[in-house]
Amino acid sequence: MAKANSRVKKWELLGRKELFSAPPWIKLFADTVRVPGGRVIDDFYRVELPDYVMICPRDKKGRLLFVRQYKHALGNVTLLFPTGFVERGESPAKAAKRELLEETGYKAKTWKHVGSFMIDGTRGCGKAHFYFAENLKKATEPLVDDMEISESVFLTVSEIMKAIEAKEISLFSAVSLFGLATNPLIGKIIKANGKK
Amino acid sequence: MAKANSRVKKWELLGRKELFSAPPWIKLFADTVRVPGGRVIDDFYRVELPDYVMICPRDKKGRLLFVRQYKHALGNVTLLFPTGFVERGESPAKAAKRELLEETGYKAKTWKHVGSFMIDGTRGCGKAHFYFAENLKKATEPLVDDMEISESVFLTVSEIMKAIEAKEISLFSAVSLFGLATNPLIGKIIKANGKK
Repeated sequence: MAKANSRVKKWELLGRKELFSAPPWIKLFADTVRVPGGRVIDDFYRVELPDYVMICPRDKKGRLLFVRQYKHALGNVTLLFPTGFVERGESPAKAAKRELLEETGYKAKTWKHVGSFMIDGTRGCGKAHFYFAENLKKATEPLVDDMEISESVFLTVSEIMKAIEAKEISLFSAVSLFGLATNPLIGKIIKANGKK
Repeated sequence: MAKANSRVKKWELLGRKELFSAPPWIKLFADTVRVPGGRVIDDFYRVELPDYVMICPRDKKGRLLFVRQYKHALGNVTLLFPTGFVERGESPAKAAKRELLEETGYKAKTWKHVGSFMIDGTRGCGKAHFYFAENLKKATEPLVDDMEISESVFLTVSEIMKAIEAKEISLFSAVSLFGLATNPLIGKIIKANGKK
């Protein structure tokens, strides 16, 4: 937040020009902004991507549920937590339940919202909504889609450490959510976010 | 990694078309890919952003060093760890030292590479390189740039929790790096990454 006695000031947004648009996947803009001191910059790029949810499901033994998927930005198959875009008109909480069921076939009785955070403070790139899911029950088989084939795997903390070491888990979001899920302070972080 | 006995297969990249280019800031592509089953998709978007570094500096009292900055994608002033783009021809480790000095005026004797991770498994959006920095020494004043005015602030873990609660810390990267920095497993994660 801007502080009254701070030298750090907001920029003034003077205009926003659309450079590319392919809804619902991506929009690219160039913002015209006035920065402190008065200089005007007319090409500050902004990337709009849909919000996504990522769910860290935990079973009674403390194992976490990962999915093995091909991720095209990596160009490789990787282990990550169940994740997916929030659809138009859908709440993040509803998207989290849908994605967990679609990708793993599991339902969860207990849901905790870890937090929702902007991905990139400079360009945007969407917002991520993180959830913990507990009291899991297998309800159905994972949905098979030619663009998304998932294999579910429960991993112990020790197995997860080895998978990070072997670069089998290599996405920032997956490593971060694991870091939050195994952090003793996380209860307080969830409490803080739950208030809003 | 792709497993021999897995149904999860890589996509075949058939072509890549540049839709927008403004180096060194951003490039947008549409990939043509063949997904399992044989269907060809000609508009799988890829966003290339420069890699960035983010540094979690810790003093002898265990306080972490944040910077207060305006971040345009948020449209607001926020607290985050010192961060910045890796410049052309620069190593991430060198960028981390440069950014810490530029944004805070501090140098650190002890550096640990936490890991380097792709931001978005679907679109790309660059790679983040995370570091811990210890044995801090004030060397100079922060660099003043009209696009980046930074105020440094040392925060205790308890103050950081309050700042997350108050949404003064709201970027995914900052919350995640805090989550990793205060995680008792982090020593093992660093060891795992250090081997590569």
